Amino acid sequence: MQSYPSKSVEKAVEQISKLPGIGKKSALRLALHLLKQEELFTLQLVDALTKLKSDTKFCKTCHNLSDEVECNFCSSDNRDRHILCVVEDFRDVMAIENTHQYHGMYHVLGGLISPMDGVGPADLQIESLLGRLDGTITEVILALSPNMEGDTTAFYLNRKLSSFNLTVSTIARGVPIGGELEYADEVTLGRSILNRIKQG
Amino acid sequence: MQSYPSKSVEKAVEQISKLPGIGKKSALRLALHLLKQEELFTLQLVDALTKLKSDTKFCKTCHNLSDEVECNFCSSDNRDRHILCVVEDFRDVMAIENTHQYHGMYHVLGGLISPMDGVGPADLQIESLLGRLDGTITEVILALSPNMEGDTTAFYLNRKLSSFNLTVSTIARGVPIGGELEYADEVTLGRSILNRIKQG
Repeated sequence: MQSYPSKSVEKAVEQISKLPGIGKKSALRLALHLLKQEELFTLQLVDALTKLKSDTKFCKTCHNLSDEVECNFCSSDNRDRHILCVVEDFRDVMAIENTHQYHGMYHVLGGLISPMDGVGPADLQIESLLGRLDGTITEVILALSPNMEGDTTAFYLNRKLSSFNLTVSTIARGVPIGGELEYADEVTLGRSILNRIKQG
Repeated sequence: MQSYPSKSVEKAVEQISKLPGIGKKSALRLALHLLKQEELFTLQLVDALTKLKSDTKFCKTCHNLSDEVECNFCSSDNRDRHILCVVEDFRDVMAIENTHQYHGMYHVLGGLISPMDGVGPADLQIESLLGRLDGTITEVILALSPNMEGDTTAFYLNRKLSSFNLTVSTIARGVPIGGELEYADEVTLGRSILNRIKQG
């Protein structure tokens, strides 16, 4: 049991340490840092956190984070409207955008099917995904994490998507570029042999 | 250059990543966590941060953090007013209190002398320390970090305190309890031999 020098410090540490990956010690260090800074520093932080919650919207079409009712991708004229990439959350959109290899549309599920965590298909944006398949979209790419939840969700979506007249693909799995073969785990390496790509 | 899905997320990431030890990736993870929580979660955090800055005072006597004009130690009747422990900041007070071995008063310098960082004696609560030495205090313990800044500050304080009629001591340095001798660094081990304690 720590004895904090002041109630306000204790309260701040309590709230800060509720954030994921921040323990009491880190929270105390952050609180001390804030106390040492000018008032403006805290004001700006508090303002940004308040606005994060109040100003951030979810795009009505793809459910990506957005400042407007429709996100930059859905309202853009420069994206390929025939291809749709399904991802778990907005960080995946950012990661894919950073590759500069994809120019189609997105659909953010808002999670993955996970019976362990009580997340079922109805908790995800799956109905609205199916609602977008009006014939314009000819290919759906499932870009989900290569783990149990991702595979379960992909399996479920595959079944749902089979009744539509479109191509369903998943992102390639294999040895990461720059990695050394001997350090690749056997599942990944095995998959990379099964899914080998014919040359020329 | 990341392309954030919304201005409010970008702004929040920018402010959160100004905190020490939190990079852009962690800030983004924290922002996503906040977005996924109830509004109340952010409100409580923002409230605690605001109050941290507005409600936390510095004790007028020892400069420890406090909710009142005078801190719990300075206003307490149960502390030994003859002995004064000089520390760098309030986390040291908490660390010493957690040992339950000390029952005297404290004095928080608010930093250590560090010419590299432009911190001189005038930037610390040294004048007010000397002002407290009115004859009641018979021993001053220097509990400063065992590094260059701590040693410089201790040297400076030793000289200043030499004109007062009191005992000046420093916390013992030596091998940490529970540690193994062979892993102790040579400076610490050497010091622990020089400062050996006679038995019986």
